[in-house]
Amino acid sequence: MTASVGVRRRRLDGEAKVRGATRYAADVPVQGLLHARLVQVFEAHARIAGIDVSSALEVPGVVAVLTAGDLPFVDGASGRAAEPLARGEVLFAGHPVALVLAESEAAAEDGAELVSVDYEPLPAVLDMEAAMAPDSPLARVEAPVEDDSDVGAAHAAVGGGEEDEPTEELSDNVTARQRLAAGDVDAALAASQAVVSGRFTTSRVYQAYLEPQTATAWIEPEGEVVVNTSTQGAFPTRQTLAGLFGLPLERIRVRPAPLGGAFGGKLMVVEPLVVGATLALLRPVRLALTRMEDFTSSNPAPGQVIELEAGARSDGTLTAVRGRVICDDGGNADLAVGSISALLSSGPYRWEARDITGYDVRTNRVGAGAYRAPGAPPAAFAIEALIDDLAGRLGVDPIELRLQNVLKEGDTGPDGGAFPVFGAAECLERVRSHPLWARRGELPDDEGVAVGIGWWPGGLEPAAAACRLDSDGGLTIVTGAVDMSGTETTFATIAAEAFGLPLDKVRVVAADTASGTYAGMSGGSKVTYTVGAAVERAARDAREQLLRMASSELEIAPEDLEIVDGKVQPIGVPSEARSVAELAQEILRFGGRYEPVEGHGRTAQTSRAPGAAAHLTHLRVNRDTGDVEVLSHVVAQDVGRALNPDLVEGQMQGGAAQGIGWALMESLTDNEEGQPVTTSFVSYAVPTVDRVPPMELEVVEVPAPDGPFGAKGVGEPPVVGVAAAVANAVAEATGVRLRDLPLTPERVWSALGAAG
Amino acid sequence: MTASVGVRRRRLDGEAKVRGATRYAADVPVQGLLHARLVQVFEAHARIAGIDVSSALEVPGVVAVLTAGDLPFVDGASGRAAEPLARGEVLFAGHPVALVLAESEAAAEDGAELVSVDYEPLPAVLDMEAAMAPDSPLARVEAPVEDDSDVGAAHAAVGGGEEDEPTEELSDNVTARQRLAAGDVDAALAASQAVVSGRFTTSRVYQAYLEPQTATAWIEPEGEVVVNTSTQGAFPTRQTLAGLFGLPLERIRVRPAPLGGAFGGKLMVVEPLVVGATLALLRPVRLALTRMEDFTSSNPAPGQVIELEAGARSDGTLTAVRGRVICDDGGNADLAVGSISALLSSGPYRWEARDITGYDVRTNRVGAGAYRAPGAPPAAFAIEALIDDLAGRLGVDPIELRLQNVLKEGDTGPDGGAFPVFGAAECLERVRSHPLWARRGELPDDEGVAVGIGWWPGGLEPAAAACRLDSDGGLTIVTGAVDMSGTETTFATIAAEAFGLPLDKVRVVAADTASGTYAGMSGGSKVTYTVGAAVERAARDAREQLLRMASSELEIAPEDLEIVDGKVQPIGVPSEARSVAELAQEILRFGGRYEPVEGHGRTAQTSRAPGAAAHLTHLRVNRDTGDVEVLSHVVAQDVGRALNPDLVEGQMQGGAAQGIGWALMESLTDNEEGQPVTTSFVSYAVPTVDRVPPMELEVVEVPAPDGPFGAKGVGEPPVVGVAAAVANAVAEATGVRLRDLPLTPERVWSALGAAG
Repeated sequence: MTASVGVRRRRLDGEAKVRGATRYAADVPVQGLLHARLVQVFEAHARIAGIDVSSALEVPGVVAVLTAGDLPFVDGASGRAAEPLARGEVLFAGHPVALVLAESEAAAEDGAELVSVDYEPLPAVLDMEAAMAPDSPLARVEAPVEDDSDVGAAHAAVGGGEEDEPTEELSDNVTARQRLAAGDVDAALAASQAVVSGRFTTSRVYQAYLEPQTATAWIEPEGEVVVNTSTQGAFPTRQTLAGLFGLPLERIRVRPAPLGGAFGGKLMVVEPLVVGATLALLRPVRLALTRMEDFTSSNPAPGQVIELEAGARSDGTLTAVRGRVICDDGGNADLAVGSISALLSSGPYRWEARDITGYDVRTNRVGAGAYRAPGAPPAAFAIEALIDDLAGRLGVDPIELRLQNVLKEGDTGPDGGAFPVFGAAECLERVRSHPLWARRGELPDDEGVAVGIGWWPGGLEPAAAACRLDSDGGLTIVTGAVDMSGTETTFATIAAEAFGLPLDKVRVVAADTASGTYAGMSGGSKVTYTVGAAVERAARDAREQLLRMASSELEIAPEDLEIVDGKVQPIGVPSEARSVAELAQEILRFGGRYEPVEGHGRTAQTSRAPGAAAHLTHLRVNRDTGDVEVLSHVVAQDVGRALNPDLVEGQMQGGAAQGIGWALMESLTDNEEGQPVTTSFVSYAVPTVDRVPPMELEVVEVPAPDGPFGAKGVGEPPVVGVAAAVANAVAEATGVRLRDLPLTPERVWSALGAAG
Repeated sequence: MTASVGVRRRRLDGEAKVRGATRYAADVPVQGLLHARLVQVFEAHARIAGIDVSSALEVPGVVAVLTAGDLPFVDGASGRAAEPLARGEVLFAGHPVALVLAESEAAAEDGAELVSVDYEPLPAVLDMEAAMAPDSPLARVEAPVEDDSDVGAAHAAVGGGEEDEPTEELSDNVTARQRLAAGDVDAALAASQAVVSGRFTTSRVYQAYLEPQTATAWIEPEGEVVVNTSTQGAFPTRQTLAGLFGLPLERIRVRPAPLGGAFGGKLMVVEPLVVGATLALLRPVRLALTRMEDFTSSNPAPGQVIELEAGARSDGTLTAVRGRVICDDGGNADLAVGSISALLSSGPYRWEARDITGYDVRTNRVGAGAYRAPGAPPAAFAIEALIDDLAGRLGVDPIELRLQNVLKEGDTGPDGGAFPVFGAAECLERVRSHPLWARRGELPDDEGVAVGIGWWPGGLEPAAAACRLDSDGGLTIVTGAVDMSGTETTFATIAAEAFGLPLDKVRVVAADTASGTYAGMSGGSKVTYTVGAAVERAARDAREQLLRMASSELEIAPEDLEIVDGKVQPIGVPSEARSVAELAQEILRFGGRYEPVEGHGRTAQTSRAPGAAAHLTHLRVNRDTGDVEVLSHVVAQDVGRALNPDLVEGQMQGGAAQGIGWALMESLTDNEEGQPVTTSFVSYAVPTVDRVPPMELEVVEVPAPDGPFGAKGVGEPPVVGVAAAVANAVAEATGVRLRDLPLTPERVWSALGAAG
């Protein structure tokens, strides 16, 4: 067997990216291109009285200024994608109200500055909790077109649980409410020896991809609309665009460009604008968001408030958890992160009873979206703090308490169903055995070591893949999946292993929606688990085809053949080997008598493979400045099977680094009028290399029964538990529990001062 | 069953072509493009002493002038494709010796005029028969790099037959010799009651596609060479280019453009030049041949000399045929048309003995190539004349004589193997029953009615296809086959029928070599028979997948379900129907539990499905002018199964029209020095609408056992027998047998005059 799985390999796309040769979405040359620039209104809530575009149109090079009514959506098109420009009502400070199209970027920018918007301010709804009150002003005065798709889908995606009809009185600002309840919480808490509680808040966080969102659209002479875009999903984008503009699927071809980061944020923000504009103007249109536009008008992670109460018996058994999870979804969100976060807020633990309700609330902020494990870091921050607090009350080891209660295969999971294979316990055991954990009692003053664990259920979506043997004896894997974080390199590993060829003989093509095999959005930590499984099947199918062909050529039964070093041979008889290239040339020729070797794999995973990562962090708190310095950080993550350890570790490292941002510095901030003040990397802090601690990466492998070679999703889990571990370590170091993210020096200093 | 097969449908690509919206190869916008122009030397044979490019380089906009040594072919690259520019020796008048690259077409043209080539004339070899003599001057003085690929492949493609080692002394101008011999020809002829013979000549004929050959190449920043080209075959082009330039397959992506006609001529004429230039200059390069360049430097059908002798017994049994077939292949041909023509020169008949040798001869003319049924029209012209002559000698009805001897399934074919299912007899019967045949004896003076039959063995090549069910309930067929003459529309028909959806729910995508399924060149009348069969399998595979999914949804066994009107339902129970679109949406969604419906079909046809067409033509000869006016023409062609009668009839009509060109007017002509005088449509006559006679099209259906729904190739057969029928009718009308094509007024008038 050729060993490809488990071997460290560079990313196939790495060299081109390092050389600067990768053509990102903004780099594709298009003739006759119009450049687009947003006209944004920086009033949190307002009614638009009029938009004067006359001065803008006088700018040389400006071709058109489009407002909401100019984009040719079908009647009834609903949801955020159908409203990329404000329809009469500004819903957040930064809301785009018009799109300027010009022959150059400079002209578009000049034009945008000259568009004059006349508006009447409306009461701004900025406090998510106050917004829930029945008498709250509404963040959206004009009712939106009914959206019957995405919120429900996101809800269904994370599983059900017990529901009832609420008697709560809520304002129409509450766009979704999801209650997950089981057992008698009151009784369970009453019977608990320890009960802890807290109110936790987390900030709005920007995905901070290097490449701002970018899309280009044009119409081929035959009428096909081509969309070259920094999307995470070609097929979902095609389907949504077709619905929005009432076009048959074959009229739209989505060509995914290499992504310069995405992290959940790149889906349907820019595409409706460029497609709408190109259909309106019949010219190619590109919108490459400026960093400020991206900061102020895309879809960051929502701010959250989580109030939780949790109990345990003196023997360490967790009893019940209850509370509420509120998401500040902003003015034009589609995704109900609150529902997901509510599901995750009980942590990866067994509870005798639970009752958590998630609320998604519309406010006058930019609409929230998905960011790596949406809703999970806040949920872990809250529940992991309570778990540590319970351990303190009970006087037990925090890891032991977690190990005693952590979900195992067959337990009832948070959605009420049987929980699948899960490696959280193994991750906890791994950090428990780390020397750092033993040093916990011997630390200098103001230093702390603590753990936090995070998990992610993992998405599921049907997928297909093709595996073609080419005339040089190499394989080409074709999928419709966008490469995120090296998934194509992983596909190559899977195919090489399944077929039996060296990795360098495998090429991977992300096809467009015309010729690709089906895949959904790259996200939800599902690409390797679902598309990768299809790739494995396709490669095995192709291998069988080749062995049958070789069986005919060599006159030996297929089961007596093996593929070794790029050759097919009778098992153990290299002298009779025929190279795969030679066989391929015998197949792929005029008059050839063998069918092409082209495997096809299709999957619909129905078993989940949740991922988990335990974090062990060591930090020092500067009591004079409030600064928290993470000295070292251990990530133990169950990856199922490390198909390529380099890539897996890269995910662990990157996720943990982003978790440090959640923990210590990242926060999209508005002024009192709801106007954004963090609109660039000058004012919005992300962890730079000096703030990312030295990391130790512990790869834990608890194979997923249905994953390719046991692999499971690795993208989301590593970000989830970082802030939880950091906050727990600050509590360890200082004895003060901080419940508001990020743990900025100001907050830490103030809390220490208040604690005396 | 949805009836798609046998229904008349417009071509899917028709509207865009009629509207002028189709983007042909020359219409694709490319930024930074360099335009290329050939520098040709119009001396038939010369040694190049020097090329002075200095003046050309002074033309504003001219970037480079490349000569043979500047194109980065790998050492040892051989064949015509490796020598798109003369390597030191001009082999024909018109041979390109340099390529001028400039920022505009005009600058390239100006530059080309200023390139000065210093050459020393060499003896020109212009007579193919004289060139065979051992003491003939050589048409190529410098030995070419050994080419071990294409000639042999073409030979093998038409089957074997008995061979021996010739004792003939031949010059090195003879590049291929293929003898097909069986039985005792001398004895058989000696025992014949009638023996006839003739020496036949045919002209060089230009494919006369509307779109001159065009290709554009550029290098993506990642290093991939993209070739957008008017090719008949994407995968073969990729493979050849990779070999020529020593690039791995994945470094080349061939994107086939919609073809503006091809007829066998569009493969590897322009691609080596643009790829070589783009690799040399690292800039995008386009070469769109001018009509004159296309006339003088591409690859027309070769001129041929066929000498045949044939016998029959008085009972009408054909006895033996012998002779030789000589092809004037020009200076740089790859294809051994003589070998194919030799195989076909015994016609579709049983013979007791045969001995025909084909010769391919290098001369100082532009290299010959494939044109719709290469070698077949001359072969049919010769053998059909002898068959009519034998009928005359024996006093039997020419159709009866043919019917008595025509090949039937199981007979020994010309290649010595058992002949497959064949509809030639049915075609002959169809024209025999036509009223025109009965009028044969009652015609006015100088009118004639006669028949000719042509056949084509049909090419074979492995192929694959994919069939994807999209979320709107439509099907997308993906192949790597270039659409020729509406093959994509045929694929849609096949898929619609096999899956059970209406034709308008099927889309067809010709993918590029990165993401496509394998297909060879579109040509040889094999696309429908081979790729079409793969499409059928793919669609049936997808249908089964959908029925299994629907079975699960409806809880009914798959075999009890049917697809009717875009819905899946229990057989006969429309009230329980679920639309295919609805099922597709249930499959292709986040969290979906069904695998995508994506069928894959692979074929390697090994049984041939030869096609045949019988022509019945009625014409009048003007004895004063020599003009031949075809009054009406009947084509009876066995198409196996007419999947779309409109398309099939289009092929019959187009092929017969081109046959009229062969018969009456088309001839690439040189002056005595071998310099072309027919270099545009001003001097080269093709049949215009006033010269194409009224046609009656008789579709004969003798199903091919392995063809999709019984279909067989229809592209080549209709052109083959036209000139034969016309010449036979001229003989009928005048009593004078003309044996040189085309039958121009001058030739006819001269022959009638000579005959008295």
